[in-house]
Amino acid sequence: MTTLKDLGEQGLLRRLAPFWAAPHPGVSVGVGDDGAVLALTGELVVTVDLLVEGVHFSPTTTPPHAVGWRACAANLSDLAAMGAAPLGLVVGLGLPTETTVAWVEDVYRGIVACNPVPIVGGDTCRAPHRTLSITALGQVGKGRAFLRSGCRVGDVLMVTGPFGGSRAGLAVLQDPDRYQNLPSWATEAVIRAHQYPVPRLDAVAPLQQLPQPVGAMDTSDGLADALVQMAQLSGVGLVVDLTQVPITSATRLVAQEQALAWALYGGEDFELLVSLPPASPVDYPLQLIGRVVAQHPGEVRDTQDHPITRMAAFTHF
Amino acid sequence: MTTLKDLGEQGLLRRLAPFWAAPHPGVSVGVGDDGAVLALTGELVVTVDLLVEGVHFSPTTTPPHAVGWRACAANLSDLAAMGAAPLGLVVGLGLPTETTVAWVEDVYRGIVACNPVPIVGGDTCRAPHRTLSITALGQVGKGRAFLRSGCRVGDVLMVTGPFGGSRAGLAVLQDPDRYQNLPSWATEAVIRAHQYPVPRLDAVAPLQQLPQPVGAMDTSDGLADALVQMAQLSGVGLVVDLTQVPITSATRLVAQEQALAWALYGGEDFELLVSLPPASPVDYPLQLIGRVVAQHPGEVRDTQDHPITRMAAFTHF
Repeated sequence: MTTLKDLGEQGLLRRLAPFWAAPHPGVSVGVGDDGAVLALTGELVVTVDLLVEGVHFSPTTTPPHAVGWRACAANLSDLAAMGAAPLGLVVGLGLPTETTVAWVEDVYRGIVACNPVPIVGGDTCRAPHRTLSITALGQVGKGRAFLRSGCRVGDVLMVTGPFGGSRAGLAVLQDPDRYQNLPSWATEAVIRAHQYPVPRLDAVAPLQQLPQPVGAMDTSDGLADALVQMAQLSGVGLVVDLTQVPITSATRLVAQEQALAWALYGGEDFELLVSLPPASPVDYPLQLIGRVVAQHPGEVRDTQDHPITRMAAFTHF
Repeated sequence: MTTLKDLGEQGLLRRLAPFWAAPHPGVSVGVGDDGAVLALTGELVVTVDLLVEGVHFSPTTTPPHAVGWRACAANLSDLAAMGAAPLGLVVGLGLPTETTVAWVEDVYRGIVACNPVPIVGGDTCRAPHRTLSITALGQVGKGRAFLRSGCRVGDVLMVTGPFGGSRAGLAVLQDPDRYQNLPSWATEAVIRAHQYPVPRLDAVAPLQQLPQPVGAMDTSDGLADALVQMAQLSGVGLVVDLTQVPITSATRLVAQEQALAWALYGGEDFELLVSLPPASPVDYPLQLIGRVVAQHPGEVRDTQDHPITRMAAFTHF
């Protein structure tokens, strides 16, 4: 297997050129100069995520193609949560010299497979651990960004899809023997949910049709974390009907009695949590899970008035 | 010393809040949502650099304040080389849990000291090695970007300042005993050149006054590398008078007979190499080092017709 040490930096850049060489109407200057130049209308939205092997992914649960996909999905999900349309990606890669070129190419293939916009720039350097830094650039109309602080009393809380699948997939990948008697359609579905989560860019245009920008956040750190953050940043109370949180039958089969806990605290499902006026006409399949109230500002409660906290959310240190 | 493990992620974010909390006219949404939102005119310019401890910096040569400064300078230098005005920075930090909060705060202080624009976003996560990923965002008038491919036959080659200082500073930091008999003004000057290089943002506005965009590149991988890249990407020959390459007397004192080699191949000086029509009226102290010719396209030669190659440039793998 050819490694980066065999190939050198210039050799690696030549091998990666096909991933970013395509001209694109919005890109005036792409990879190969000191920076990239992009045209945009409205305002610029920018997000960044750093992923480190051994912390955010491991070879046993995430093949390189899925590493690229997930890194890209996490950033595009942040753009979707802001109500933005993607413009381009900037990819930073820190790699040990013994990394194979095949690994790097598979990461890039995963990025391209997930991603509707061009890779406009990047930086590649030596590092003791495989590290990905992805910056996503998007555009949004002036004053049209979806904010975490955008919940208003009287709004309903909607979500774009099911929760807990990514956490269930991780469980199967980490301990396959334990789940070997489950039907393969179920284990394959949750593994796919873990390795290839879909950022909800398709929900942006339907939600941007509404007269006022909605409140929104993605649920990458878990649904409970998103609920608490939106309650706190909006200064409102949220009441959630936990029986309405969507969970697939595949996730229920794997998770059993932990299904709701994984839905609330598992994270990395990349569905959007949206706050908008009741009966808003949105051409997108949203699921109603709760409502925004004036009582208990900053807090989230279920319909029995029990508090929901972000307690089990993933903490980085 | 308080470490990140003591403080946790939320605690760290609270400590860093002063560095990015200030409101700024161009920033509609800053840190704290899924992404940042910025207003801009013209086109967007984006650059990224990844820096890893043990590869790009070490505790013996670069205190944390200088780590932040240099990471920021490298990115702002890329914006300057594109002819762009800076808009904002996005800072990704990967940190071991035993990192002290004081270290992180010093890095941020260095970033802020170097940087005229707001930190608009970021990501902080655990990593086995200290890793910085800085993305710089800038704006440039449509069609006004300075490109590496912008050398035209008949142009003169100019530089914005002296070379070799950063490499000389590294030599003193790595082996102080060897240079202990030199005057302190000289060793201090080259250490400063290494730890606190100045990105040439101040040259952008004077160069943008010209009727046509100039060709330009920064010299972060060395002057020789920049010359070869501009010759190749512009499809022209470059003739350089090596006696005219500016080198400070401090650098000459440290480098002795290696002064020209360090100027050509040392790198990280962050001066700009600019190609523009002769006698262009530029209100900036530029130094003439050569000219652009039709002969030997893609090659760089000195006035004795000896080839100059990028040979000794730093290679990442």
